[in-house]
Amino acid sequence: MSEWNGFDRSRWEMLYPQWLEQYEQYQSRHLALDMTRGKPCPEQLDLAEGMLNIVGAGDSMIAENGTDIRNYGGLDGLPEAKRLFAEMLGVRPQQVAVGGNSSLAMMHDTVFRAMQFGLCDSPVPWGKLPKVKFLCPSPGYDRHFAICELFGIEMIVVDMLADGPDMDQVERLVGEDEAIKAIWCVPRYGNPTGITYSDGVVNRLAAMKTKAGDFKVIWDDAYIVHHLTDKPEPLKNMMEACESAGHPDRVLMFCSTSKISFSGSGVAAMAASENNLRQLAESLGVQTIGPDKINQLRHVRFFGDLAGIHAHMQRHAAIIKPKFDAVLNKLESDLGGSGMAEWTTPIGGYFISLNTLDGCAREVVQRAAEVGVTLTKAGATFPYGRDPRDRNIRIAPTFPSLADVHAAMDVLCLCIKLVSVEMSR
Amino acid sequence: MSEWNGFDRSRWEMLYPQWLEQYEQYQSRHLALDMTRGKPCPEQLDLAEGMLNIVGAGDSMIAENGTDIRNYGGLDGLPEAKRLFAEMLGVRPQQVAVGGNSSLAMMHDTVFRAMQFGLCDSPVPWGKLPKVKFLCPSPGYDRHFAICELFGIEMIVVDMLADGPDMDQVERLVGEDEAIKAIWCVPRYGNPTGITYSDGVVNRLAAMKTKAGDFKVIWDDAYIVHHLTDKPEPLKNMMEACESAGHPDRVLMFCSTSKISFSGSGVAAMAASENNLRQLAESLGVQTIGPDKINQLRHVRFFGDLAGIHAHMQRHAAIIKPKFDAVLNKLESDLGGSGMAEWTTPIGGYFISLNTLDGCAREVVQRAAEVGVTLTKAGATFPYGRDPRDRNIRIAPTFPSLADVHAAMDVLCLCIKLVSVEMSR
Repeated sequence: MSEWNGFDRSRWEMLYPQWLEQYEQYQSRHLALDMTRGKPCPEQLDLAEGMLNIVGAGDSMIAENGTDIRNYGGLDGLPEAKRLFAEMLGVRPQQVAVGGNSSLAMMHDTVFRAMQFGLCDSPVPWGKLPKVKFLCPSPGYDRHFAICELFGIEMIVVDMLADGPDMDQVERLVGEDEAIKAIWCVPRYGNPTGITYSDGVVNRLAAMKTKAGDFKVIWDDAYIVHHLTDKPEPLKNMMEACESAGHPDRVLMFCSTSKISFSGSGVAAMAASENNLRQLAESLGVQTIGPDKINQLRHVRFFGDLAGIHAHMQRHAAIIKPKFDAVLNKLESDLGGSGMAEWTTPIGGYFISLNTLDGCAREVVQRAAEVGVTLTKAGATFPYGRDPRDRNIRIAPTFPSLADVHAAMDVLCLCIKLVSVEMSR
Repeated sequence: MSEWNGFDRSRWEMLYPQWLEQYEQYQSRHLALDMTRGKPCPEQLDLAEGMLNIVGAGDSMIAENGTDIRNYGGLDGLPEAKRLFAEMLGVRPQQVAVGGNSSLAMMHDTVFRAMQFGLCDSPVPWGKLPKVKFLCPSPGYDRHFAICELFGIEMIVVDMLADGPDMDQVERLVGEDEAIKAIWCVPRYGNPTGITYSDGVVNRLAAMKTKAGDFKVIWDDAYIVHHLTDKPEPLKNMMEACESAGHPDRVLMFCSTSKISFSGSGVAAMAASENNLRQLAESLGVQTIGPDKINQLRHVRFFGDLAGIHAHMQRHAAIIKPKFDAVLNKLESDLGGSGMAEWTTPIGGYFISLNTLDGCAREVVQRAAEVGVTLTKAGATFPYGRDPRDRNIRIAPTFPSLADVHAAMDVLCLCIKLVSVEMSR
């Protein structure tokens, strides 16, 4: 859906008075519901509590390479932690650097290094160029866009299709403009669309000709094991695709356990070619004495291997799948066939993406806020906070209780109905 | 000591053959002793093992402001962690930002932000200026100097006197050159001198006129509670001194628990004026979703308050003081009155600084390495790794066992004697 063609105003105008009455009733109920953030709920966090005691007094503090995990030393992670992330990311352990608690910080710092020093294949630091541009498939992740804004990097919106970014647009742009240095990707259960890139999209990203010789695909695999069903959507291995295409230095992969173990107390990692890692280590070694190795070993001992992580994530899914179902069922029952909205039905990740009719999203979010339901700011999923069609709303159902999800969705659907009619007048 | 005037060659030349014989005996002993790094020894790390289990299953995960420490949220630290660091640094809690595991990273990132965006009182980002210079009291900390090198910041050596940097030099330089934007300071038990700044030095740093309006004192209080005696050397409160002098935005203070709890798994913090912190938060909030709050609460629960930290540090001192004594006793017995070396006698921190006769340090370190005793690279304590008089050697006695300290010092003293005689010929 993209326009107002499918909207039959006369059909809904007669129901408008009773919707308005319902809305007015909410005004006196003083709700305080927050659907803004992709945060795990407390029950999800409880699942990893056993990790907290797993490296304690009396346990061995020595990693498999003999490192005392309590002392200085080691810039890019314990061997056993590298192996775990390598298995997760589908790369070789020597292609992994394990970091601190935040993959966002690793991405920020990578962009900072590219701007300040250039990357392994950069003729000059990006900050020395008259202009640097990134492709931003949108709707996308607001914190990626914030990094671009911070460094004065121009953002070019690329449409998201059902199987990933519009590759015709992407290929045309990177083929003709050498100022385009990177593309932001959340390739699996994307934020906010829930879309997973098809093999074709992965292959084209890996193989495409780029005017910039040091073009990078920033591969934020934030929802790498965050499946909601037993039949995960397959994602083609981007590192292998880049190597096969003769562009081994093109991809920089990131992930973290923030939504696996603890949010803010997890472990982040990046994967890249050894060329890339060697060059990054030069400045990383000046920034820090290395990451928290005790927390790395906690994760390794608690999960063991990738199978252990998958088993753990099934327990997450059992908690949050009913919340996703509640959102989708409500959307279907209230808005299905109405011509007022369309939405994604992700089988993983943390979000559902909803499009209202053009020009309605900001007003819907505003009206929901007025009765105590906070949604992600309209526009936040687009560069510069500007949704050109003012229609995208990100729904984050994981943190609130199931009852709160139901209540919030009642309000959201009602606001969409009200605003659709009002805007059509 | 600074020159060869006090060296009586004829007095030592006759002993040289027997020293050489001793040295040759070491060649067959295949020692492997490492005195390079300011690392705690395993026994020191054992002292904090109780911290590992202090936030575990069944314990409250809620901070005093209601934050679930296992989830996202909070950019600058839990209130109780801010209070603990505020007490330690002698500032108000609202002047504290608690960070990740590395104060070095906080300093690096502060310099990066100054270069990229400027600080709260900068007319332009430092990176936009034709030249940026930092004052580097030397001998000093090699990792401070490495940050300058990374960002292309010119380093100006300032002499360290017995009570801190030579303030006549400092005042003259900052008063006439607006490219000088900062001075690196390890004000307490400095690395490597062990010197603590006098009240006069603190007052002059706080009050001096600087040509650069956004001049900063980078106050790396790395050894803030790392006393070796019951009578700690007092350090005047730099934040108060700056506020009294009308320069509240001048100082940026840093510390961490890396050598209190676990090295690499501690908690770092910075303190600065609210002006400074507000401006730093703008870009920090783009870099990261916030620090590891679980680890913050571990520290708060384990130590309780500053008194708890001091009690803990007395247990550290009991382990490492004998190692410092072994170094100092050996230096005195082997080299006292020899005219071959002078050294500091710190009552805190992690290092002893030794000066050989001019032109001998590099050769001494080399000769020690040849019989298996690794010392910090000669020159490392000066900007660009260049000790203009080639005389400074940093001794780091904490990590090796007491027996190894004895053995390493035997070798070091012997090498100093050999090289002094050889160089005098």
